[in-house]
Amino acid sequence: MTQDEAKALVGKRAAEMVESGMRVGLGTGSTSVAFIKALGARVQAEGLKIRCVASSDSSTELGRSLGMDVVTLEELPELDLYIDGADEVAISPNGEFYLIKGGGAALLREKIVASAAEKFICVVDQSKMVPKLGKFPLPVEIIKMARPLVERRLADLGLNPVLRRKKDDSGPVLTDEQNYLLDCHCGVIEDPEETAAEIRSIVGVVEHGLFLGMASKVLIAGENGVEEREA
Amino acid sequence: MTQDEAKALVGKRAAEMVESGMRVGLGTGSTSVAFIKALGARVQAEGLKIRCVASSDSSTELGRSLGMDVVTLEELPELDLYIDGADEVAISPNGEFYLIKGGGAALLREKIVASAAEKFICVVDQSKMVPKLGKFPLPVEIIKMARPLVERRLADLGLNPVLRRKKDDSGPVLTDEQNYLLDCHCGVIEDPEETAAEIRSIVGVVEHGLFLGMASKVLIAGENGVEEREA
Repeated sequence: MTQDEAKALVGKRAAEMVESGMRVGLGTGSTSVAFIKALGARVQAEGLKIRCVASSDSSTELGRSLGMDVVTLEELPELDLYIDGADEVAISPNGEFYLIKGGGAALLREKIVASAAEKFICVVDQSKMVPKLGKFPLPVEIIKMARPLVERRLADLGLNPVLRRKKDDSGPVLTDEQNYLLDCHCGVIEDPEETAAEIRSIVGVVEHGLFLGMASKVLIAGENGVEEREA
Repeated sequence: MTQDEAKALVGKRAAEMVESGMRVGLGTGSTSVAFIKALGARVQAEGLKIRCVASSDSSTELGRSLGMDVVTLEELPELDLYIDGADEVAISPNGEFYLIKGGGAALLREKIVASAAEKFICVVDQSKMVPKLGKFPLPVEIIKMARPLVERRLADLGLNPVLRRKKDDSGPVLTDEQNYLLDCHCGVIEDPEETAAEIRSIVGVVEHGLFLGMASKVLIAGENGVEEREA
């Protein structure tokens, strides 16, 4: 099975978990795209009645292009379900899910939409599962003017921050909220709770990509189909 | 002595604490305006050699109009001194200064510039001194799309958030970073450290107006002149 096939498979399984009447949060990234397409197909084929909020402009547009009712969080501040991918998934000592998100630069809106949902189901392929977080650089979203200050504090914590630049090298990446991203090449994160608290306490940090204990279920696509794990 | 006279007095005293060669952070608000004017007068009269970073566009403009060298935090990421006012000042049980700031909507940049400074001297008139914080509404700066979520969480904490609107009622106030402000009418804040941690942990909050243990000295203008208190 290719990675694209795995994403399609797990996206379809997640779409099957949505019921008519639900208020659904749509994630961002390639696995979320597979989920949104599968959900859109159900809306069209079965007339599934759902209302959605998306965590990025691109997912909003995709959902609407498939005939889905995608509104703002202001219009729909409470959600039943949020479905989104992750860049890394580990299982904490007490059985919770620890995620790194933000490779797609949407971590702030993703965390806001996830917080508005009663339940967050994470969808990944097997390659995202790790024993401990940290191989994938941890994104930290920061206020532009605070960059020198925040870089120094993150470096003092040993987190090796690197400003994310556009692929064509035309300047720094700006998030939907016009902030910068610092990708922290921290290596293995031994205590994600502690690292999260340290980063959050730095003035100028808006949000970081550690999603700790937020997902209650993870769907993992691998050679043997989709495995479901509960926190 | 009128309040304006008190502000002029304490602003002048603060300006006397600046030495040639220093890197100085300029605050925002009416007392900071008095300070910047007094400092500008020294630059012009004595040829004081200083470089400055300001916590708002208005203070940048004022400083430059007085012939001061005002640059960005990126150009000058470490400061010797930050001087700014406050909306309320209380003294913590262990003798630290607890401030509420943000009445002028600049709390985020103020906290960033204060964090960049080795020493923060707060300048106020006697009316700002309180036994406990909380009569002045506590400003919380938030991501626009997260408003319904953050409002609910703050309300759950009993903090009575109210979206700050423009004086002409033409819409919500936007900060320099294009965020909303929620003014929390919380009444007496018994444990500011706890309140700060609770607010900071809400997804969608960018920063709040509690400045705890950041100021090392407070200059207070009253009937008997300027009183200096050290933390």
